[in-house]
Amino acid sequence: MQADAVVLLEEGNMDVPPTWFRPGAAVIRCEPTLESGIVECIVTISLRGRWIQEQQYRPWRLRSLKLQPLMPVPSDIEISRAQIPKPVDQLAQEVGLLPEELEAYGRSKAKVRLSLLERLHTQPDGKYILVAGITPTPLGEGKSTVTIGLVQALSAHLKLNSFACLRQPSQGPTFGVKGGAAGGGYAQVIPMEEFNLHLTGDIHAITAANNLVAAAIDARMLHEATQSDKALFNRLVPSVNGVRRFSPIQISRLHRLGINKTDPASLTQEEVSTFVRLDLDPSKITWQRVVDTNDRFLRKITVGQASTEKGQIRETGFDIAVASEIMAILALADSLEDMKNRLARMVVGTSRSGQPVTTEDLGVSGALAVLMKDAIKPTLMQTLEGTPVFVHAGPFANIAHGNSSVLADKLALKLVGRDGFVVTEAGFGADIGMEKFFNIKCRASGLRPNVVVLVATVRALKMHGGGPNVSAGAPLPKEYIDENLSLVSGGCHSNLRKQIQIAHLFGVPVVVALNVFKTDTEAEIDLVCQIAKECGASDAVPCHHWAQGGRGSLKLAQAVNEAASRASNFQFLYNIEMPIAEKIRTIAQKVYGADDIELSPAAKAKINYYNQQGYSSLPICMAKTHLSLSHMPDKKGAPTGFVLPIRDVRASIGAGFIYPLVGTMSTMPGLPTRPCFYDIDLDPATEEITGLF
Amino acid sequence: MQADAVVLLEEGNMDVPPTWFRPGAAVIRCEPTLESGIVECIVTISLRGRWIQEQQYRPWRLRSLKLQPLMPVPSDIEISRAQIPKPVDQLAQEVGLLPEELEAYGRSKAKVRLSLLERLHTQPDGKYILVAGITPTPLGEGKSTVTIGLVQALSAHLKLNSFACLRQPSQGPTFGVKGGAAGGGYAQVIPMEEFNLHLTGDIHAITAANNLVAAAIDARMLHEATQSDKALFNRLVPSVNGVRRFSPIQISRLHRLGINKTDPASLTQEEVSTFVRLDLDPSKITWQRVVDTNDRFLRKITVGQASTEKGQIRETGFDIAVASEIMAILALADSLEDMKNRLARMVVGTSRSGQPVTTEDLGVSGALAVLMKDAIKPTLMQTLEGTPVFVHAGPFANIAHGNSSVLADKLALKLVGRDGFVVTEAGFGADIGMEKFFNIKCRASGLRPNVVVLVATVRALKMHGGGPNVSAGAPLPKEYIDENLSLVSGGCHSNLRKQIQIAHLFGVPVVVALNVFKTDTEAEIDLVCQIAKECGASDAVPCHHWAQGGRGSLKLAQAVNEAASRASNFQFLYNIEMPIAEKIRTIAQKVYGADDIELSPAAKAKINYYNQQGYSSLPICMAKTHLSLSHMPDKKGAPTGFVLPIRDVRASIGAGFIYPLVGTMSTMPGLPTRPCFYDIDLDPATEEITGLF
Repeated sequence: MQADAVVLLEEGNMDVPPTWFRPGAAVIRCEPTLESGIVECIVTISLRGRWIQEQQYRPWRLRSLKLQPLMPVPSDIEISRAQIPKPVDQLAQEVGLLPEELEAYGRSKAKVRLSLLERLHTQPDGKYILVAGITPTPLGEGKSTVTIGLVQALSAHLKLNSFACLRQPSQGPTFGVKGGAAGGGYAQVIPMEEFNLHLTGDIHAITAANNLVAAAIDARMLHEATQSDKALFNRLVPSVNGVRRFSPIQISRLHRLGINKTDPASLTQEEVSTFVRLDLDPSKITWQRVVDTNDRFLRKITVGQASTEKGQIRETGFDIAVASEIMAILALADSLEDMKNRLARMVVGTSRSGQPVTTEDLGVSGALAVLMKDAIKPTLMQTLEGTPVFVHAGPFANIAHGNSSVLADKLALKLVGRDGFVVTEAGFGADIGMEKFFNIKCRASGLRPNVVVLVATVRALKMHGGGPNVSAGAPLPKEYIDENLSLVSGGCHSNLRKQIQIAHLFGVPVVVALNVFKTDTEAEIDLVCQIAKECGASDAVPCHHWAQGGRGSLKLAQAVNEAASRASNFQFLYNIEMPIAEKIRTIAQKVYGADDIELSPAAKAKINYYNQQGYSSLPICMAKTHLSLSHMPDKKGAPTGFVLPIRDVRASIGAGFIYPLVGTMSTMPGLPTRPCFYDIDLDPATEEITGLF
Repeated sequence: MQADAVVLLEEGNMDVPPTWFRPGAAVIRCEPTLESGIVECIVTISLRGRWIQEQQYRPWRLRSLKLQPLMPVPSDIEISRAQIPKPVDQLAQEVGLLPEELEAYGRSKAKVRLSLLERLHTQPDGKYILVAGITPTPLGEGKSTVTIGLVQALSAHLKLNSFACLRQPSQGPTFGVKGGAAGGGYAQVIPMEEFNLHLTGDIHAITAANNLVAAAIDARMLHEATQSDKALFNRLVPSVNGVRRFSPIQISRLHRLGINKTDPASLTQEEVSTFVRLDLDPSKITWQRVVDTNDRFLRKITVGQASTEKGQIRETGFDIAVASEIMAILALADSLEDMKNRLARMVVGTSRSGQPVTTEDLGVSGALAVLMKDAIKPTLMQTLEGTPVFVHAGPFANIAHGNSSVLADKLALKLVGRDGFVVTEAGFGADIGMEKFFNIKCRASGLRPNVVVLVATVRALKMHGGGPNVSAGAPLPKEYIDENLSLVSGGCHSNLRKQIQIAHLFGVPVVVALNVFKTDTEAEIDLVCQIAKECGASDAVPCHHWAQGGRGSLKLAQAVNEAASRASNFQFLYNIEMPIAEKIRTIAQKVYGADDIELSPAAKAKINYYNQQGYSSLPICMAKTHLSLSHMPDKKGAPTGFVLPIRDVRASIGAGFIYPLVGTMSTMPGLPTRPCFYDIDLDPATEEITGLF
């Protein structure tokens, strides 16, 4: 008698399935849960051999939502609105969640508690599938729709348990240029307006936490500039009912300073001074404020200009909220405790004597954990065909790693069970999103992927084969509309081949998913699939999810299922203990195809500083353009013979990575003359939203 | 057969109560809702005379949570944590909400849909009780705890349906100086951490909406400064698949400009120019950005300093989020449509030719309504004794009106029914919060209050009677700890008398609630109650809710019940069509006791401008210190013989009021040397929060 398990039996069918009750099992308690017509039984089982394995994979009884795709394909919002989502508690029950593990947010979304991981910790994980892409055009090549189409095919058509794990989109682009990110056509997350708007408030929580740190920094500098050591000490450690005590957060700071005292009265004058003065160097504050709005005028600002701030002005700026280090932490944390520790380790700047200053030094780290306590729970939603989706975290793909959360993937892998599938997506091209997925996210999570799905389009392949420039807003040149096998072939033999090779560096099989557009010809499609297989892909198939939903991705689902049954020999690209510069060089040479790297003096100085501070054993998060394998956006295909310039190197200590800057990265988008919001409206009578896409 | 009603019958008790089925009623459909053991029947009834009235008041079957108050009273968080809240769906059912009217956000809070108003539109409203206060000390005198104690007494002890309607607190003070706002002692909203943190995201939605407007303003100025009329027109009205069309939001702008055309090609060059150029005067932009954080360094800033903004720098600032006009709109709107219209009317600045520029001119008003579509639904929570509370909106009490939402009050008045009570709270002293409640909120809602509860403390009365200065952080002088009948009497005969008179100006009976502290003596308590009644209060009673919960407020509940049975002769203080200066003078003289007002030249100029723009028929929202009836915070009691200086006059056109500034108002608090956040922490194992109060 070693473990408890919960099994679900249908009411009126109390004849227990024989596979569930083998010798050694005994029913402890049966409780009807009336609303569902399900009886829940707790049985004690003995953990022995084959028996436990059989018991643990349970195909979901998922009621899929029927799709009847129209031609021509209607607008995204029309498709989304035409489908009525299942109540989220029903979906949750179908995928094996217990009612007490669910926190509904309205009718169609719910947070899932992390206690699930504990309940299912003996459950084997499902298959772990990463969707990445070839180097895209500026228009994007449809990784999200492929991800959604794939799970629709796996769950609703092949009846294999499967979960999609997606990033939460920033509201900036939704109201700016790009629009929403819920997929498109007949491969969408619904309701798309819930997905694209506040969701369950995680980005808002990040914004609040991030900006509390910023307010704490400036206020602290002001108070240190205007008060004596004694006044600061009296205020920081006040006498309450005649007793002075350090708070736990202050004791942590004392420990870091090497002061192992707990009685405030016992500190020497010098210790008091060391304790009360963070002595932040205003020119070395790296923490920025954030908003989840495309507000270009906040890129560079001067703060503190009111007379109440006594002349303590300084230059700083705002980033888009998803660029906050707190977002990267949310995506990488694997428990509440881990998140709390990471939040406390964040470095916000440097003291005048060169010491890093953390959020814990500011006394704010506990409050950050409190502000983020709900954000750590992934949000459950569904696809157009009623299959489950986790939406969680959405770190910036430049200065952070651009992947959804470790926790959502882990929860989903338990829920789908041994023969199920979790499909997660990495931002940008495989050289960026996939490389970071492997070297950063998998290192943090301990998870190992089974298959990479590499998304390609005829359009992007033609561009890599030498086709003319593609840019947003301008009409597509005719090469992209008419059949052109030579351009397609060129793109396959350059960029596609290289991206397949990159996945193979990590020892993971690749299935190429060709996202078919209506202008693609049979010959073009066949050519891509043929060359992809020649280049080493396990399989290569065309996908029609946009026009047909899951049914259009059946071939992809079958190919993924087949590839996942093969052995994967996952390995990291570099050893974490390699020197920082060596790690950067390895990525540049092996992934990007560079001859070498060139470190600027600033970059060298930073690397030395990070070595001194003991940060050298962190993985690398390259901040590079996604429009080329190189650092030059106009070099398409698979460039060679270049040296990658490293302009600067920065660190996110809480998130846990070093990020070299290759070129200039904007962390705050702008609004065009006519932003998306011009068309976004709400009918107050029907409450229907228009203009979101 | 004229109307449907839904009645709830207990399962196993299908003998229909005779009062519900009179001649003319017929059962249409009965459906068991299994999870609750309740059978829901839809019956068709005929609307006739007495019958319908009897049917409509249904005392709730509220399961109250038992309190066992401890002595000495534990900390707020300990009390909150010791009580397990009812599941919010159970509470909702108990107060007559249908499952489809509820949108749960986790276990203990839920948004309530506005469709309820339609379902219950024939239901008579309950009694409407306003809690206001005498002029407070800087420590506050406990209006929130009185409000919560009163509904605990009414619902849990007197078994009278009652609802509290409270404001959502800003997170700024929660992490700054003041701490949370969920009440205190044995009169609290639970769980207090949910109340004090993100709640259901309304303030975050306001922040997002507010800052989208700000981003739109600066981006538009940049684009207008760098593009020709033709380029602007081509971008604002682009050709999509060969067709150019104005969006609905653009057609509204054309109408306002007097251009009644719908074909973009038909506009003259001059009309194009008028249409595409908002021509905002950078020095006359009144819209500020907001954060819900006490970030003093954002009070005055310079934006646009990055080279990408091409030198278009300007000075501006951030306010705390609750100071956003959008918050005032949320609090005053009485439907989704009304909110949308108000959001579109907001004036963000003035063009170089002196014309007001609105959010609709910016094309952003539809997106604002979309961002606010969930925020408009009030949030249901509960008190420590399990009685219902609506939390909704929390406009700044200085430059806005400082009252919770019209919609929460309206929903609650229908839910409690004819003989029930809705207790709502007005910020600051009665001269501010109550005056604005009557003249602004009641004017917007059409609701009429039955009773004013005026909260007083012996401490504040002693201050008004001539006691020494009271300030936050400093120990209380001994006059406030020892019995001192002469100071108490002085405060009663000055400030308390005046505040009672103010309520009587509006024709509403007053019950004085003396919030008892442990240092108050019997003689002091008796004296306050005696003088209050001599000054015209219907009744005056001591309240012990902090130490005893609802049981400690029983006398108050009885007094309120008694006063509410009397006739109330509500009247506004001024006619809305009076000239702006006359309205200000009326408030200054009749409410504050001033001899007259003195308008600065700037104030006079603004009044003239508002008259020209047709804004003269708006109510007045005074921005004045709450620490004195006058504009001088140190003048306690009931000052006379002063002239009220009006420094400037501003307008919130969307919210719908003119706000004169009396003195300088800070709309962004700061952080002290040791903010509350130092003690706020989360235990990752238990998920318990410490340090919130």
